[in-house]
Parts: sequence; C-alpha cells; structure tokens
Amino acid sequence: MSRQVLLLGHGDLPAALYSSAQMIGAPAGRATVLGLYPGDGITEFVEQLREVLEPAVQEILICTDLAGGTPNNAARYVQKTDARVSVVTNINLPLLLELLLSEDELSNAALVEACELARAEVIPASGATEGE
Amino acid sequence: MSRQVLLLGHGDLPAALYSSAQMIGAPAGRATVLGLYPGDGITEFVEQLREVLEPAVQEILICTDLAGGTPNNAARYVQKTDARVSVVTNINLPLLLELLLSEDELSNAALVEACELARAEVIPASGATEGE
Repeated sequence: MSRQVLLLGHGDLPAALYSSAQMIGAPAGRATVLGLYPGDGITEFVEQLREVLEPAVQEILICTDLAGGTPNNAARYVQKTDARVSVVTNINLPLLLELLLSEDELSNAALVEACELARAEVIPASGATEGE
Repeated sequence: MSRQVLLLGHGDLPAALYSSAQMIGAPAGRATVLGLYPGDGITEFVEQLREVLEPAVQEILICTDLAGGTPNNAARYVQKTDARVSVVTNINLPLLLELLLSEDELSNAALVEACELARAEVIPASGATEGE
C-alpha cells in the first residue's frame, strides 16, 4: 500500500499513457507523471523528479519510456541514492495497467513476470502483395 | 520502401507516442496515427482504419497499444481481409523508434527480434525501506 508509482518519459507520452490506462479502468490519482520537454536538461529533470518523490512511502516504482533516454537516466541517477527506488524501463500500456491495477506492492519476481507478459508480439501478414 | 506504418491506440496515446518518437529522431510523416475515443465503437473505428489504408503499398504494418483492446481487435479484423497487413501488439517507444528508423521493410524475423529488444526490464531497488 505504501508504494508510489511514477511515470517518466518524453513530452506528453507519460500523461497520454496514464490517460489511456484510465480509459481502460486504471484508477485516477495513483500515478505521478513527469514529461521531459525540449530544452529541459537532465539536471533540471532530476530536480523535478526529486521534488515529487514522497518522503513517507516505503517503495517507489519509476517507470520510464525508453532505456537510455534522459528520463530513464534521471531515474537511474536518483535510484543510486534512494534504496526505495525500482526502475522499470520501456513501459507500455499493458504493463502500466498491470502495475496500476495490482492492489499490493509487486515483488521483484512479479515485476519481471509482468514485463514478460506485456511484451510486444507480431501477428504476421498472411500473404504477399496481392491482398484480397 | 512501399510500406505503410499505422499506429492505433486508446485516446491520445498513438499521437503522443509518435510525437515523442520525433523528439528522439524519428522522421515526421512516416506513420499514420488513429486514436479511439470514448463513444467510438469498433464498427466506426474499423471504417476509419479502412479509410486511411493506402491502396498502392505492398506492406502495411499496424502497431497497436494493447493486445485484446478495441484498436487491436479492429486491426486484426482488417487483417483477415487484407493479406498485406501485419499487426504488432503492445507497442512501446523503443519498438516504434526501431520500426520508424529502419529504412527498409522489416522481415518477420526482424520484427520478432525488434519486439524482443524493446521489452521492458526491471532494475530492482537496492534495499528495503531505509534508503540512502
């Protein structure tokens, strides 16, 4: 119960992800979104991130949109000095839904399984050029 | 070269995904976005989708935000009658970047590999409650 979920990413992506998750049943007010905009540097972004961390929670789960991107790097930087922080990279809608709809904190093993279940899949085309 | 990329999802998510991809170098004008909004039914959404399919292209790659969601179901429905259509579910930012930055059409094997590389990962917290 004492878990904060943050959603970090480029531009409007984190806000849109959370808004879309709410269209499919995710509760409002359960995640904090923080977008990086053109002109924002990592130093300012780390400051913004530190400002929204809740002092009293026991676990902080920071989801980021892109491994290696600035929001992810900021999350990893903050993680080094805050032992409460787990980071999940390369978030997508099914994974966010799973994280927001689970009542309790997720164990590390459950997080890894959620990532696995949310992975992208290909349903290939049935034929070449000459379609129906 | 003769490939159309579509990005389907709930609400503003597809537009935000593409906009964020462009912040990181994806070219403008390479993907068509289509959002499902509250009140839209699958029938209307399938119609909207058919209207944006380009008649002359040889391959159509439809990326959707959520396996089992309405945008995905619409894509699968259209796929049944158009042999040019491949569907990629559970899209995220790194996967979209890979699809948009590849110059050529991707083989099915390359698509599967791109999904694998874009999967979410967990970097667990270093310790329990008492941070620092």
